[in-house]
Amino acid sequence: MTDLPQRFSNPALPARVSICEVSARDGLQAESRTLPVPVRLELIGRLAEAGLSSIEAGSFVSPRAVPQMADTASVLAGLDLDSSVSYPVLVPNRRGLEDAMTAGAADVSVFISVTESFSQANLGGSLDETTQRGVDTARAASAAGLRVRGYLSMVFGDPWEGAVDPNTVAGAARALRDAGCTTISLGDTIGTATPGHVTTVLDTLVGAGIAIESLCLHTHNTYGQALANVYAALQRGVSQFDASAGGVGGCPFAGSATGNLATEDLLWMLDGLGISTGVDIDAVAATSQWLGEQLGHALPSATSAAVTGR
Amino acid sequence: MTDLPQRFSNPALPARVSICEVSARDGLQAESRTLPVPVRLELIGRLAEAGLSSIEAGSFVSPRAVPQMADTASVLAGLDLDSSVSYPVLVPNRRGLEDAMTAGAADVSVFISVTESFSQANLGGSLDETTQRGVDTARAASAAGLRVRGYLSMVFGDPWEGAVDPNTVAGAARALRDAGCTTISLGDTIGTATPGHVTTVLDTLVGAGIAIESLCLHTHNTYGQALANVYAALQRGVSQFDASAGGVGGCPFAGSATGNLATEDLLWMLDGLGISTGVDIDAVAATSQWLGEQLGHALPSATSAAVTGR
Repeated sequence: MTDLPQRFSNPALPARVSICEVSARDGLQAESRTLPVPVRLELIGRLAEAGLSSIEAGSFVSPRAVPQMADTASVLAGLDLDSSVSYPVLVPNRRGLEDAMTAGAADVSVFISVTESFSQANLGGSLDETTQRGVDTARAASAAGLRVRGYLSMVFGDPWEGAVDPNTVAGAARALRDAGCTTISLGDTIGTATPGHVTTVLDTLVGAGIAIESLCLHTHNTYGQALANVYAALQRGVSQFDASAGGVGGCPFAGSATGNLATEDLLWMLDGLGISTGVDIDAVAATSQWLGEQLGHALPSATSAAVTGR
Repeated sequence: MTDLPQRFSNPALPARVSICEVSARDGLQAESRTLPVPVRLELIGRLAEAGLSSIEAGSFVSPRAVPQMADTASVLAGLDLDSSVSYPVLVPNRRGLEDAMTAGAADVSVFISVTESFSQANLGGSLDETTQRGVDTARAASAAGLRVRGYLSMVFGDPWEGAVDPNTVAGAARALRDAGCTTISLGDTIGTATPGHVTTVLDTLVGAGIAIESLCLHTHNTYGQALANVYAALQRGVSQFDASAGGVGGCPFAGSATGNLATEDLLWMLDGLGISTGVDIDAVAATSQWLGEQLGHALPSATSAAVTGR
């Protein structure tokens, strides 16, 4: 089946897509088993070898809150930070930014919520406070010459509040852009979005002056919608997507076995659409199999299971 | 989260979609455990109660070949065949059709392949022979006043031959239509299709004179593509989709845990797109949980797991 999927390209879609591989951070932080630094380095090395050029390497949050990401400084120390691959690390505040810079990070990510409930429940403050914290951190990172991406959480729905107004998302995206974020990742944190919702949010953001080229879609497959949402975003010109090898990374707000959009499932679709990524799907699938062994359970990617004959 | 998914309707998409629920036939025939007639009747009853108006009830193939579908006549005997719900049964040939008619069936499905390899490996004859058999059966059923749907297998790729020419699909679809099939279900039997492929096949069929209203898409989620493919088909005006409660029904040609497109995952997307179906997603999810217990394993639907908190 080497000629499958058949390729049918469409000039109305982006010719090339950039994938930000999030398994080593967003994925692993949702796992009960903490992987030691050498294993995390092997994961990142395998992903770089597969052709991924943007690989989240960890985070500088409190190791008490997120033990899975402890020793991210040691991870960065084991990477070639001068290579063509970027290794963004998550920084929650100015102190985390300083730690990341001390460890040599050239790429950082800040995060803010678009809902009051999630801000208070997960970010430890009011929406105003945590937004200001994220914006300050982004501004400081940008002023220091780092590349900064901004994550928006709960863009397509909130587990406590339900519906989220796309105009609220636009305001938060503008705040991140004005603080120096060159990429803004729109997080469907609980996976409830559907394609028309994605289209509406993108149109609202573009209408508010946010460049489509700066937008990234971060989907979770909690309700099986992740790839349909990616297709809707491609049709609006989005060319950056977050994805996770094997789909590792659960949703903490639903009793679901599915997590992040699996990189392999995304690659299968992009390949079929004739969109280039520079990434070897078989190498990613093999990495997912290996990662599942390290974590002690199979990962949810459908493509990985089909390709490797699991 | 009762207001999720948020609804964003699009006048360019169909306002209403018909789902043909295939769990009780295409789903169960892939399971190692054979369910007795009363359990199959309970499944069908629960699905009708959930609002599904087209429910595959079984097949009249040899019980030696497909023991899971033995006693389909007894299943039909337990259903109200005069109700507003249609209960199509699969018939492989004239003899199967006669058995179905004797059992009181008002709706039958015939099936043909679009590839030589699949025809020989699974339908027991050359492509010409098995096509003729399906066409003859459809013509006889139509002449007897039954409603006839036609399944096309391997429309988007074949496990032995690889790529399939969309023009070949158009020829097979025309043969089924000319034989009296009012619905033609395009089967992505091995789940390899991607959205541009779906669009191309649909455009080819419409260009060959097949009415879009007569087309149904039958997807498998082997590579995680099923729902993205449905979205592409909706954008071309397709308003009929096959789906299976819980996603029950494996793909025999890949070592995959995923099967048919899950009805719940489809419903979540259609609900978010503001497309009406008349089906209660919670009732389907509860039925999938129950069905998984009958089969002795959890079913793959992401939405079912999220909704029921499994």
